[in-house]
Formats: sequence, structure tokens, C-alpha cells
Amino acid sequence: MKILVSGAAGMIGRKLVERLARDGALGGRKIAGIDASDIVAPTPPPAPFPIRAEAHDIAAGYVAPKMVAGRPDVIFWLASIVSGEAEADLDKGYSINLDGTRFLIEAIRREHLLSGGQWKPRIVFTSSIAVFGAPFPEAIPDDFHSTPLTSYGTQKAICELLLSDFSRRGFLDAVSIRLPTICVRPGAPNKAASGFFSNIIREPLRGLPAILPVDDDVRHHHASPRAAIGFLLHAATMDTAPLGGRRALTMPGVSVTIAEQIEALRRVAGDKAVALIKREPDETIRRIVGGWSRQFETPRAEALGFRAEKDFDEIIRAHIEDEHG
Amino acid sequence: MKILVSGAAGMIGRKLVERLARDGALGGRKIAGIDASDIVAPTPPPAPFPIRAEAHDIAAGYVAPKMVAGRPDVIFWLASIVSGEAEADLDKGYSINLDGTRFLIEAIRREHLLSGGQWKPRIVFTSSIAVFGAPFPEAIPDDFHSTPLTSYGTQKAICELLLSDFSRRGFLDAVSIRLPTICVRPGAPNKAASGFFSNIIREPLRGLPAILPVDDDVRHHHASPRAAIGFLLHAATMDTAPLGGRRALTMPGVSVTIAEQIEALRRVAGDKAVALIKREPDETIRRIVGGWSRQFETPRAEALGFRAEKDFDEIIRAHIEDEHG
Repeated sequence: MKILVSGAAGMIGRKLVERLARDGALGGRKIAGIDASDIVAPTPPPAPFPIRAEAHDIAAGYVAPKMVAGRPDVIFWLASIVSGEAEADLDKGYSINLDGTRFLIEAIRREHLLSGGQWKPRIVFTSSIAVFGAPFPEAIPDDFHSTPLTSYGTQKAICELLLSDFSRRGFLDAVSIRLPTICVRPGAPNKAASGFFSNIIREPLRGLPAILPVDDDVRHHHASPRAAIGFLLHAATMDTAPLGGRRALTMPGVSVTIAEQIEALRRVAGDKAVALIKREPDETIRRIVGGWSRQFETPRAEALGFRAEKDFDEIIRAHIEDEHG
Repeated sequence: MKILVSGAAGMIGRKLVERLARDGALGGRKIAGIDASDIVAPTPPPAPFPIRAEAHDIAAGYVAPKMVAGRPDVIFWLASIVSGEAEADLDKGYSINLDGTRFLIEAIRREHLLSGGQWKPRIVFTSSIAVFGAPFPEAIPDDFHSTPLTSYGTQKAICELLLSDFSRRGFLDAVSIRLPTICVRPGAPNKAASGFFSNIIREPLRGLPAILPVDDDVRHHHASPRAAIGFLLHAATMDTAPLGGRRALTMPGVSVTIAEQIEALRRVAGDKAVALIKREPDETIRRIVGGWSRQFETPRAEALGFRAEKDFDEIIRAHIEDEHG
């Protein structure tokens, strides 16, 4: 089987390609090769099959036809600019996050028709809980409406609709997975407003201080990078017939308060780690986070076999195993 | 005030321009002129102000900048191809129903910036209950998710998202109104699968036979053309602050079964009219209609001042007054 991964240089894309390289197969089928692309060419990991790394801007209309010309069986469509950048640069956000996907599905449709209807790839699209916007019920149900309050969330919601329609039309076979906040994010602290959810775990585990800008009772919905890769692989191999016309799924996660995150850290790494968390309330971040979703009910994804961690302790242990070796 | 009406040659567009011409004002402000456009130039009614009729294809990128160059205060964005055509011709549907609106909002954004942020038009967009897709609860709530099962519904849902985002960004001030099935549609019977809802009322009122292809217990959500015009005028003049980020509203309507429609016809026009309805079950239409929504709960639109008829008798009387004089 041939696989295409866009956004392969991002945190999730990199981990996905590493996992596919390690497994050598997907859904029981041997992988013949991966095309891994991003705005800068990704660095391929060692693999038992060829990985072709390419630099592509999916906002350019000529790119998608080239990407799909090899008729990959599975397309992991991860390329996207992030929420903050899509808000700061409206043109760039719509070009990459919306037009890029439109170019993809049109290129697939053309190639599908050229194949006499034989080629119909599975698309796994990383959507986001940013498709939802406040005000929220305490727990957000699977059938809650999509009223995003960011351009990023708007673009993700539109891509979900396009992919559902083109699936219904029979040109492709898409699953859109709405990822929770990914925690614990590896790497250096970043400036995303949500960064502290990861910082207060990752930095103390390294013996470094971390700043907590919000109150201890803030609740949020998390999944580990390992769970996210699990979601992607399951979406790539699941039977899509039970999805019917509803191709977008909110992924399960662990809903915890900051206080519960801290107690999990204490259980896993002790009081010394917890003592490295410094409380420095930040009004701007408190206000931003105050408008975020806190909890999701995801019976649909769970019934379809998507699995997140059981609790936040497990999220921390996954981080230690995957990042501290 | 200056007004732009796209789709002005359609049933709703024509009635809207006639109503504006009769009123001479909108929301207490005198109308200085209307630009009325459609794919064929509309025929303007007599009016106390100039009406410029133009033929435009909104799918062409050069059109929207010309349409908004005069900086209209209110834009009624009705132009669209219908559900059946959008399903039969995928390219035409996406070009007109999606790209046309994208061109519009980009042209408005540019003109807004050129005006130094002074010009920020109200957009009234006619969306549709086709943004919803089965399976449905018995009564569909305001916050039910949008999972359309047609390309038309997909395109309307995407336009809602775009208009909400560009409103939030401050370039324009949009209200998307999801119209129920319009009943009683004037004119000749058409081939739309939903045509019978109107046919079984309109034709007997003219003394002509009408075919009923579905069972008497089929329930559906209706509003008269008169109510639809009322929705448009209210959306053009309402305070949009209470909408927050949620610019799309499901319009109220009258939810009745076919049996209740027929009894209303009997009350208004007698047994002789009812006797003109011929039952000719059609499996294809029964199956299509079986997947449709039956009833909506619309507390949000009602709280914001949108009003439909009280009952189906009132819908029939509005039809008689408006079409039979």
C-alpha cells in the first residue's frame, strides 16, 4: 500500500511517519512507500520502505494533482497552519486551510474519474474541537452544532463538510477526526495560549520550572500524542460504512481540571516536580481559556473503536515512555 | 439607503423587490435605489426609486467587485442554484453556491478596507434546512449539528460558516436564515420532489386536480412566501448584537402532516377542493421525503422577532390573498 502524508514535518506528522516506518504495515497491509510532504521537506526516519520527502505548498493549485498522481491508498491530510496564524493572517489561513483541501479533493475527483472509478482513497483529515464555539453546555454532545469562533475553526468545519460531501459522492472515503488539545506536547514551551497545559507537566519532569497562568479549576479535554497517532491509524483502517453521511468524529479524551493534572503529576513524579509549577495568573490567557470547551461526550467515536487514555496519569506515563525513553 | 438583491428573478427575489418597491423604505429609511441582478436580468416592478436590473453570473470572479462597488447598505444574497441542479451538476453547484459567495465576501472585505472600515453592509443570506441531514430527532433543536446529505446543503452550510467568520472579523454584518420549505409556492407545478406540498393546495384552489404521492401522515415544516419575505426584511433590519458568533438561524414555520394540510384546505375551500386531490403513491418520492426533517424547534429565531404563520389555514389564506387577489 502507498501512503501520502501532508504536514509530515509537524509534531503529529513526524510521529505518524515514525510509527508507520516502525510498523512497516497499515491495517495488515505491507507499506510499499510513503510520500511525506510539508512546507519544508521533512526528514525521513529509517524505514523498511522508501520515503520520498518533498517540500510543497498545498495552497498552490498545481500541487495537489502532483501529490495524488501516484494514487496513494491512504492520505493523511494533516497540513494546516495553526489557529493563531490563521487568525493573524486571514489570506494565508483560507489559502492553506481551505483552498488547499479544496484543491486536494478536486484533484482526487479528477484522478478517480481517470481511473474509471477504481481509485478511491481513504482520507484521514485532522480536524479540531475548534469547530465548536461558546457558549457551551457543560459536556458537549456528539451532535452539537459547529459555530466556530476562529477562522481556523471555520476552515476546519468547512473542510469537514467538503470531505463528507465528496465521500457521499463516491470520489473518496474520508474520516475527519476532531482532535482534542494534545497534551503532553513534546519539545520546547511554545507561545500558544494552550501551551501551559503541557508546560506544567513536561518542564517539571525535566526538572525545570513552569508557569501556570490560569486557575486550578480550569477544566479541559486532552489526548496524548500517542493517542492522536492511534486515532489516525484507526481512522485509516476502520470500516467507514457505519459513518453514513457523518464523516466527522469528535475524538475521545481525558477531561480534567488543572488541579487533577497536578495531582496526577504528583502521583507519577512526586512533590518535587509539583513544586516547580509557579502560579502567575495572566488575565489575557484566563479570558481566552474561559471561552474554551471543557468536556466532550464522545460515545460515537468510542463505539467506532477510537480509544484515548483512561486518565491523566496514563497521559503522563505515555509522555515519559515516548519522550524520556 | 441602497440595496442590492441577487437572485432577483427568482420567486422569492421577485416578491422581495416588489415589496420593497411598495414600501419605498426599509427599517424606516427611504430606499434610494435597488440593484437587482440574476443570471437573466430581472423585470423591475414599478417603484418610487430607480431599480437597475442586471444579468450577472456570480460564479465569475469579476462580478462581485462590480456588484459591491456602489457600497449598498443591505445585500440580499439570494442567488443560488437549487438542490436538484446542484446534485446533478457538481461543478456548477460549487461554482455558484460556494465560490459565488466567497467572491462576494472577498469583494466586500476589499471595499470595506478601501472605505477605511466605514462601509460594513448587512448581508441577508438565504440558507436552507438542507444544512441538516438524517437521522433526525422528532423535533430538531436550534443547536442540532449540520450534516447535510446533499451538495446543495453542504454549500449552504459552508456559506453560513464563511459569513459568520467574516462578520466576526468585522468586514460585514451577516444574518443567514434557514428557510423552511416554501408553501404554497405560486406558479405551475414543478418537478421538485417537494412540489406536492404546494400542488395539493394550489391546484385545487384553481379548480384543478393535484397528485399526492406520499402518505397522509408525512409531516413537514412550512412557511408561506409572505412569511419568507417577512424573514428577509426582519433579518435586514434587526439588531445583530444578540446573535454573537452564531449568525445562522433556523426560521420558524408551521409543522403539519399532509392530513392536516388537507383538513386546512377543507376548512378554507370546502370538500370540492379536497376531492381534487388524487392519491398516487410514488415509491421514489416516498423514499426521498422519508429522509427529510419533519419539525423544528426555533426558540432562538422567535425570541429575535422572526414570525411565521400560526397554522396552515393562515398559510392557505396568505396564498389566496397574495395570488388570487
